[in-house]
Amino acid sequence: MDIGIIIITHGQLAESLKQVLFSIVGQKEKIVSIPVLTEFTLEKLCEKIKQEVKNLNTQYVVVFTDMLGGTPCNTSLMVAKGQQNVYIISGVNLYMLITAVNLRELNKDMSINEYIEKIINEGKRCITNINDLFKNRLSNK
Amino acid sequence: MDIGIIIITHGQLAESLKQVLFSIVGQKEKIVSIPVLTEFTLEKLCEKIKQEVKNLNTQYVVVFTDMLGGTPCNTSLMVAKGQQNVYIISGVNLYMLITAVNLRELNKDMSINEYIEKIINEGKRCITNINDLFKNRLSNK
Repeated sequence: MDIGIIIITHGQLAESLKQVLFSIVGQKEKIVSIPVLTEFTLEKLCEKIKQEVKNLNTQYVVVFTDMLGGTPCNTSLMVAKGQQNVYIISGVNLYMLITAVNLRELNKDMSINEYIEKIINEGKRCITNINDLFKNRLSNK
Repeated sequence: MDIGIIIITHGQLAESLKQVLFSIVGQKEKIVSIPVLTEFTLEKLCEKIKQEVKNLNTQYVVVFTDMLGGTPCNTSLMVAKGQQNVYIISGVNLYMLITAVNLRELNKDMSINEYIEKIINEGKRCITNINDLFKNRLSNK
């Protein structure tokens, strides 16, 4: 699948997510992080996202943001309004990014909608009460 | 609610999450981040977590980890086996931490199990296909 990935969040969270992702799945191409710093104007940030989408030069771009609402998400939405191939997922966690990379490499025939649905499902699935999961091993609970 | 929060992840992700969290909800007490670096031995990391739990000195400690499995989660589990008041949630995203802080301050009478359930539900709820959500505004999709 010809998919570029942008991680955009408040502060340095996006870059940390990318670094940890690479430490787990190895260095990958077509994954960029955009930090949203307080000194950025909305216009400047919008231009930055558009430029990264252009640089990626992929059939689709999936943008991962930290939360619904807030500047990273809202600005991405402004870009997606003008570009048909840009998709946005909020609530990013590490496991969603690992899933996005693995699916991109292994499931070449998946549609973009299936791709996004699977990432969202996996992201939700990995949010777990570990104590419940290991109840037998945590016999003191 | 007398709850301490530990964020523990691969690399600098935990610290970035804490920094961005503080930039949104303000500086808060009883929230610590633990980076898991490759040079740590399991024993050293285990000791570090135990020490932070002790320093927090709260009735409960909720540990947020990046993913199920992996050193941050597995080591936290080792600590939780020995300490009844330590709870672990995997798949951390920013919105879960914001929820954890807000609930801790606003819902003093909530039980620890309700607290964890609400954080997990909110963490999952914020993982969203933004394009679906704003379909009408993204009329080109």
